[in-house]
Amino acid sequence: MSDTNDDHLIEVPIDSQELFEGKFLKARKDTVRLPNGEHAEREYIVHPGAVVVIPFLEDGKVLLERQYRHPIGRVMMEFPAGKLDPGEDPLVCAQRELLEETGYNATEWAKAGALHLAISYSTEIIHIYFARSLVYTRRQLDKDEFLDTCEMPIDDLLEACRTGKVTDAKTLSCALWLQNIAAGAWNLDWQRHSASTA
Amino acid sequence: MSDTNDDHLIEVPIDSQELFEGKFLKARKDTVRLPNGEHAEREYIVHPGAVVVIPFLEDGKVLLERQYRHPIGRVMMEFPAGKLDPGEDPLVCAQRELLEETGYNATEWAKAGALHLAISYSTEIIHIYFARSLVYTRRQLDKDEFLDTCEMPIDDLLEACRTGKVTDAKTLSCALWLQNIAAGAWNLDWQRHSASTA
Repeated sequence: MSDTNDDHLIEVPIDSQELFEGKFLKARKDTVRLPNGEHAEREYIVHPGAVVVIPFLEDGKVLLERQYRHPIGRVMMEFPAGKLDPGEDPLVCAQRELLEETGYNATEWAKAGALHLAISYSTEIIHIYFARSLVYTRRQLDKDEFLDTCEMPIDDLLEACRTGKVTDAKTLSCALWLQNIAAGAWNLDWQRHSASTA
Repeated sequence: MSDTNDDHLIEVPIDSQELFEGKFLKARKDTVRLPNGEHAEREYIVHPGAVVVIPFLEDGKVLLERQYRHPIGRVMMEFPAGKLDPGEDPLVCAQRELLEETGYNATEWAKAGALHLAISYSTEIIHIYFARSLVYTRRQLDKDEFLDTCEMPIDDLLEACRTGKVTDAKTLSCALWLQNIAAGAWNLDWQRHSASTA
């Protein structure tokens, strides 16, 4: 969205330091020059990027996960998602995460767009994929990973978004895509891809 | 979404330590007991919570902001939003942020729900409000705050979500609400509130 008319908005990086590096989280503290010439500090999580998958089942349902999220202290309903490995192609990551977490391979995939998750304090981008022609093989959860899958008609998912049963931002963002795809208002460019062998 | 049948998913907190405290970001590292009895570490940002406002203008448009977001390195299009002050009521925060950032007071407000922004590494909850009957007074930006407001027909905003001009997750989540409210599929409980004097 930036263009040459945005000089009155743009911040120019001046300095960048590591703020901390945990086992999972990595953060930086940058100094920027504001449009008025003054300096300000920006602290943010450095994230490798991620994918989220909206899997269409044969019977008009979609596949979701129920997973306990410690920062929220609740079991959350969400679409399958996961972080990119270093250098990993987002589509390959989407295929890998879908298989590992749900046990499904899909032979048709469509890229739907991307979202930025927490723009004031994280670099995270999540690439949104739709998957269809699903075949169940076997889940391959890590030994410290615990999640249920659940099948849901699209209308029930939208109702769950309305009533607050679904509050995960990436899943709500995917629901916007899903509702418009299902209504035929938005289109996808489906591609055939051989099943992941991950 | 947690109930007594979720024991096979739930993590039990065992220990909690400060991971770091920056000027803006605060993070903790907790130890949890997994459903299989093993221990794992969870690192996450501790966030005070926030609000986002979807402001309806008189002519069927909505009001958005364009703001440079350093972690993304781009000017982002997003609905007005801001962090709760300690102990602040979310509606009061929504009124304050709308006035400060856009210069508008609204006399009718509706709570639409909430979203959790980054469930794997932040406690952040964002309360979603709709505002209407807007009257322009005067913006009250902090001296280090730089943003433009822009008015947009709802259909143009949805098109911007489809084409990737809007990628902010809270704004995409709000667009799901907005589309369904505008279509009459979902309803709001509008309340009159005197204009903020913040």
